[in-house]
Amino acid sequence: VLIAYQGESGAFSEAAAAQFDPQATAVACPSFEDVFRSVETSKTTCGILPIENSIGGTIHRNYDLMLEHDLKIVGEVELPVVHNLVALPGTRLEQVRQVISHPQALAQCDRFLRQLHDIEIIATYDTAGSAKLITERNLPDVAAIASERAASIFGLDVLQKSIQDFADNVTRFLIVTRPAAVVDLLGSARLKPFGKDKTTVVFTLPNTPGSLFRALSAFALRSIDVTKVESRPLPGRPWEYLFYLDVGAGDDDQRCRRALIDLAEFAPTLKTLGSYPSAVTVRKGAAAAGAASSGSVA
Amino acid sequence: VLIAYQGESGAFSEAAAAQFDPQATAVACPSFEDVFRSVETSKTTCGILPIENSIGGTIHRNYDLMLEHDLKIVGEVELPVVHNLVALPGTRLEQVRQVISHPQALAQCDRFLRQLHDIEIIATYDTAGSAKLITERNLPDVAAIASERAASIFGLDVLQKSIQDFADNVTRFLIVTRPAAVVDLLGSARLKPFGKDKTTVVFTLPNTPGSLFRALSAFALRSIDVTKVESRPLPGRPWEYLFYLDVGAGDDDQRCRRALIDLAEFAPTLKTLGSYPSAVTVRKGAAAAGAASSGSVA
Repeated sequence: VLIAYQGESGAFSEAAAAQFDPQATAVACPSFEDVFRSVETSKTTCGILPIENSIGGTIHRNYDLMLEHDLKIVGEVELPVVHNLVALPGTRLEQVRQVISHPQALAQCDRFLRQLHDIEIIATYDTAGSAKLITERNLPDVAAIASERAASIFGLDVLQKSIQDFADNVTRFLIVTRPAAVVDLLGSARLKPFGKDKTTVVFTLPNTPGSLFRALSAFALRSIDVTKVESRPLPGRPWEYLFYLDVGAGDDDQRCRRALIDLAEFAPTLKTLGSYPSAVTVRKGAAAAGAASSGSVA
Repeated sequence: VLIAYQGESGAFSEAAAAQFDPQATAVACPSFEDVFRSVETSKTTCGILPIENSIGGTIHRNYDLMLEHDLKIVGEVELPVVHNLVALPGTRLEQVRQVISHPQALAQCDRFLRQLHDIEIIATYDTAGSAKLITERNLPDVAAIASERAASIFGLDVLQKSIQDFADNVTRFLIVTRPAAVVDLLGSARLKPFGKDKTTVVFTLPNTPGSLFRALSAFALRSIDVTKVESRPLPGRPWEYLFYLDVGAGDDDQRCRRALIDLAEFAPTLKTLGSYPSAVTVRKGAAAAGAASSGSVA
């Protein structure tokens, strides 16, 4: 199994790929679009994409890309994220003139960055890539926000540990694959035991009062939990939106199937992006299996 | 009337302030937080904040700041936004090695930027400030994304006009003031004719299935339109959210008052951020000169 991820070796996405499947090989891609392309052209089995962080919020770009491409979600992973300020060995905090990292990492360390003075904050394409840049160009007055693992891979020192605004910082990643490969992946030894208990859909709504309420009613009146609602602007049509919904039921569940038929009745467009075991279910299952195999009882 | 805005002279926020009140004086502030502080300390009458763009989506930072500070929304403005690539006179597009601008402007020109090769994209604090930087530091290989007005103020040439991804690009701004000044501003000659027909609230919900549906029902069952739903993570509490709602009724409307009481019954926290005439109402009112006020509500 080859898993495409965005970033350099040492990226959080690479760690998430290892958490999803410890036996898989993670394949670095320069951009999120390259992750999609790598999976579409069968160079890799699946891709891993950060979709939401518990401090910074949703990574909207990946919602936009899910719509532009025709991949399906087959799983998700939740990864605890610890950010560090890293720089060339010997650099002191007072010397730092620039901090570089991915915009989400910058957002998650906003409080820390606001305490610094006369420092330029520069957005880059990824966290580990920022660490790599400092080493490659030998930049003594630049620090990056990255993982400890990225620092060690690129020979940098950690100037300050755990600089994110809140200790409890988690990023949720989606595993995406070609429609033709969905059955194989969901049927794999890794995912099969868990079954599908989460479904992600995207739809538009008629621009009439109460339409979002009616959309949610399709699920609420069937006792299906809506775990996330996200809206994105419809480009070129001010104040009209696409809605993304995560619901707590698999699309093989009769209630969920009926809710989707109900929704399709009045949503001008509706697309199911995937139905898969939730990260929470997989984590609990893995913990139970671990406990069983080690003979301990929780 | 003094209106605080974030950015340099030539910023889109400055143009929005002029649209809100042509007689007012716009006061430049370095950051959004400084806008809040300027209003809180009575240095300015009110502040103007971009909250949503029809291509880039919501400016989440300002939702977060609305919650940290105790200002009230008294109005909104919609401003058409045209972005241009601007540089020092004589610079040709092929010479440009860096493009600098605000992350939202970069997002709104994403397609244009992706066509460029070997160019570093750098996020800065504002569009007009990026234009100013190029002039001040005399940077021949750097271009900024900014308004035509910013280019002319800082003596730059427009390399390429209207580079945003979609022609129909609109930013919505909120006007905020101290709670004690709300009555004065809403009673001013400028706003009084329109009455309040929009209310923004923020709330948390119990982490139980169907709670968002129940929250929306408070409005839907009273035929009050929900024009926007936005969720933001509760920092340090993964996958719990704050919800921001714009609804199509003033808080002096009996239905809206009752909906808010209903919502408060089961929302652990609920705060009304403001009730005000919508930008659409004000625009229509301004267009239909001489139309009688129908804005006084019981």
